[in-house]
Amino acid sequence: MKRIAVGIDVGGTNSAFGFVDSGGNIIASGNIKTDITDDFDVYLNLLTSEINNVFNTIQGEYEIDGYGIGAPNGNYFHGTIENAPNLRWKGKIEFTKKLSAFTGKPAYLTNDANAAAIGEKIFGKAKDLNDFVVITLGTGLGSGIYCGGKLLYGHTSQAGEVGHIIVEKNGRLCGCGRKGCLERYASATGIKLTANELLKNTNRKSLLRNYPENEIGSKLIYECAVKGDELAMECFDFTGEILGRALANVTAVLSPEAIFLFGGLALAGDLIFNPVRKYCEENLLNVFKNTVKIEKSGLKENSAAILGAAALFYSESGI
Amino acid sequence: MKRIAVGIDVGGTNSAFGFVDSGGNIIASGNIKTDITDDFDVYLNLLTSEINNVFNTIQGEYEIDGYGIGAPNGNYFHGTIENAPNLRWKGKIEFTKKLSAFTGKPAYLTNDANAAAIGEKIFGKAKDLNDFVVITLGTGLGSGIYCGGKLLYGHTSQAGEVGHIIVEKNGRLCGCGRKGCLERYASATGIKLTANELLKNTNRKSLLRNYPENEIGSKLIYECAVKGDELAMECFDFTGEILGRALANVTAVLSPEAIFLFGGLALAGDLIFNPVRKYCEENLLNVFKNTVKIEKSGLKENSAAILGAAALFYSESGI
Repeated sequence: MKRIAVGIDVGGTNSAFGFVDSGGNIIASGNIKTDITDDFDVYLNLLTSEINNVFNTIQGEYEIDGYGIGAPNGNYFHGTIENAPNLRWKGKIEFTKKLSAFTGKPAYLTNDANAAAIGEKIFGKAKDLNDFVVITLGTGLGSGIYCGGKLLYGHTSQAGEVGHIIVEKNGRLCGCGRKGCLERYASATGIKLTANELLKNTNRKSLLRNYPENEIGSKLIYECAVKGDELAMECFDFTGEILGRALANVTAVLSPEAIFLFGGLALAGDLIFNPVRKYCEENLLNVFKNTVKIEKSGLKENSAAILGAAALFYSESGI
Repeated sequence: MKRIAVGIDVGGTNSAFGFVDSGGNIIASGNIKTDITDDFDVYLNLLTSEINNVFNTIQGEYEIDGYGIGAPNGNYFHGTIENAPNLRWKGKIEFTKKLSAFTGKPAYLTNDANAAAIGEKIFGKAKDLNDFVVITLGTGLGSGIYCGGKLLYGHTSQAGEVGHIIVEKNGRLCGCGRKGCLERYASATGIKLTANELLKNTNRKSLLRNYPENEIGSKLIYECAVKGDELAMECFDFTGEILGRALANVTAVLSPEAIFLFGGLALAGDLIFNPVRKYCEENLLNVFKNTVKIEKSGLKENSAAILGAAALFYSESGI
């Protein structure tokens, strides 16, 4: 019997899961709707049923060792999801306790950005690195940090909120209620806000003016930038400048060997990496110049979250 | 025979040393001039001679286990001092290698702010803490960081340069050649610059106007603030605001349980702690509110550097 772990990625809309071996191969996968119910017990029942259904297709060869879960507002210390604004279950959800009671197997949970970092360490480009940062550029900006070979949790288990570093005093209003957080500039949402500001506050020509405001998103801005649209290219430069400067400050604190960018915006390639690298390097303290690589994540976009969650299990269980 | 470690604090002008037992008691101490020579070998000869002289006064009872050194631009990984702008020895100084060759005992070296953090962990208020930050407010701003019970060195050994987080875009010119570094605002030098700016750019009354510019320093600003001088009090508020905001950002990354302030400015008590606590808390992301204490260091000003250096030895040797 080959042994596998189940990696579960809990998103606001969907929960995806996969059976992952210790080499990082996804043997089989499936998903259910997350937002189908506000009763966590009902959700857990549906999730474990579907996991069983898919497991039946591979059961003869494999045995499940345990579960790893990546979830928004995940608390690693307690195995809970706590007051996640994008999930229907309110309050504190005892995810690992209930899942383990149900399955009889060990389960570990952390937030999604930490799972991405663990995935990078176990299955990605960071296998030999002890000090690195993974930045996930999605609707918001998440981060997972390794220091001295260990994931950084801090006192509260909530360390690594790089997206909520305040980078502009009295800047853009953030979902957290404060102003000027990095994720309001460096994320899919951030670049969209930047484009809308540039379109509204200037009369400059842009292909983006051919689209209604609600269609202008990071993908369209990318497509226009690729066509040479100057305003769209400026959106990437502006985003890269703010992110690059913030990463220079993060480097002053942590001195990582590498920073991996992951998620939608990172798919823009040179358009985002060139300005991020340039402005980070420009703003680095001398001792850190040429000490930190900024690279694309080694995990594939569509499997990273499941691999990260499974990696959490492998990392914790030592299997 | 009781066993002791020698803690050595290398400063730009003086090098102080002390014989420290594992309980943090300084049994005897001494010092030599650091800036007496630009030849490190001559310096090391003088230092070890003077250590021997003082050791002779207590020799009957004690045996030296080894040495810990705190030094500006100290590189823990290599036991070297590298290109320290405030020291006369240029290039890379093989401090621990030469000291150990000379004495036959193990020696460890780190930078002075890290030594302060290790001192806080071994002999100060952080004995039971795994995640905390020590900020030293002297001529500049240094920091030493513990994550998950271990001192944070990062990839380069230079992690913890909180003083060189850029807090004001195009702000005050820093000694590092960049602009807007935290230490140009939150340090003895920073508060002096703030006072001079307020005196020059406004016509407001202040006791500070009774003194020539070159006499206005952090101590005088403190004395005037204690007398109720509004401009002097505003200097502390301004300093505390910038430091508090920066510490809120540091907390977003590290989530420490406590931040200890140490050094000249921290002696101003409520005048500096009140605004730092207020502006830090105001700028914290919700999940971190009421999770981080900002406190005075538990080490005494005049013995902290020696204790920190000796603590490095105890921490590394496991004795």
